[in-house]
Amino acid sequence: MIKIIENQDQSHQIAKMLLNIGAIQLSLQKPFVWSSGWNSPIYCDNRLSLSFPEVRSYIKNLLAEQIKLNYPEVEAIAGVATAGIPQGALVAEQLGLPFLYVRSKPKGHGMENMIEGKITKNQQVVLIEDLVSTGGSSLKAAQALKEAEFKILGMVAIFTYGFDTARQNFGEANIPLVCLSDYNTLIEEALQQGIISEKEVELLKGWRENPAAWTNDPQKSKVV
Amino acid sequence: MIKIIENQDQSHQIAKMLLNIGAIQLSLQKPFVWSSGWNSPIYCDNRLSLSFPEVRSYIKNLLAEQIKLNYPEVEAIAGVATAGIPQGALVAEQLGLPFLYVRSKPKGHGMENMIEGKITKNQQVVLIEDLVSTGGSSLKAAQALKEAEFKILGMVAIFTYGFDTARQNFGEANIPLVCLSDYNTLIEEALQQGIISEKEVELLKGWRENPAAWTNDPQKSKVV
Repeated sequence: MIKIIENQDQSHQIAKMLLNIGAIQLSLQKPFVWSSGWNSPIYCDNRLSLSFPEVRSYIKNLLAEQIKLNYPEVEAIAGVATAGIPQGALVAEQLGLPFLYVRSKPKGHGMENMIEGKITKNQQVVLIEDLVSTGGSSLKAAQALKEAEFKILGMVAIFTYGFDTARQNFGEANIPLVCLSDYNTLIEEALQQGIISEKEVELLKGWRENPAAWTNDPQKSKVV
Repeated sequence: MIKIIENQDQSHQIAKMLLNIGAIQLSLQKPFVWSSGWNSPIYCDNRLSLSFPEVRSYIKNLLAEQIKLNYPEVEAIAGVATAGIPQGALVAEQLGLPFLYVRSKPKGHGMENMIEGKITKNQQVVLIEDLVSTGGSSLKAAQALKEAEFKILGMVAIFTYGFDTARQNFGEANIPLVCLSDYNTLIEEALQQGIISEKEVELLKGWRENPAAWTNDPQKSKVV
């Protein structure tokens, strides 16, 4: 249920822009430590793109385009808090549609309290997400909208790591996800730009296969 | 340092729209209880306006217009989390300026972690706020930007209750605030629309003078 946009020039352009502005950083020598405790050769902060009007507009236009293409019946746009809110609002404005956002935690009791904006039962909604890792928080937001009786058409995200877990989670939830770019595209783009070597490509691919156990030691990071 | 936009047709139009879509509700018979514990005859959820494209665009255009008018040197727009993020992003896009947002709490240690987006020292920034009550959260966001060495030109908000505390807090922080509409305008508009009576105007004004001690009993709610 997860797909990357078909136009490879566009998915490469997104990867290129995110690398250029430092929103995505690769560091094999000195891996990042994620809040989950994982060692990772990649760090992604797409929120930086909001500070670059050209990158922001490019992303907005592609998100809006993909929504029209994949979910033509869309009636409202929902942003997944917090990082999905700004691009969600921009896309809703671009498409002239109602906007809502979904908190990561309810303000009070009940899932309905996670939603800000007008609750309209049976309204067909598309969610906007900044970054998909395991898909946990995105699908929690979708669940809150479902419980408020929205009809979820699907989701659009800027970037996905392409973890199997995400594929499984979105499949189980039966929610389609379209991503503007992904980890594979990023690796190709970084190689083309000379940011990484052919050798490093394998190390980077190893991380994606088994992120929890990955180290930057080629002997240890083999997929088990 | 707090002013309401000069064009009264516009500030009335904002009040009218917020009343019409139910973003602002008045209830004298059965007052609302705010999270602070205050009894209040008014409840304000401007986030609802995001679900009404015409209202949302009208607000966006007025915010952008006021920024150009009051802070022509503006270089970046910052949204105050969470409610100020969507309109902040729309205004930044409208003006073609970089966007940032400021969390209400730091993610980790240090105030700088409250800011999402690109930190650019000495950049001249205008903050977008949804609703001003005492001004506490808005000024905390401004403080975080100051500590990251941004230059705060001022703030623009959709609505203010017009509390003296806010006037005092913004004055002390030496930060100008422009509001699209306010409690007084709302009362005038609600009276014109026949939502409230002349008698109720006095009760409503009493709340604003002394919100902490207010009840809807005219004998008790007098200003002391």
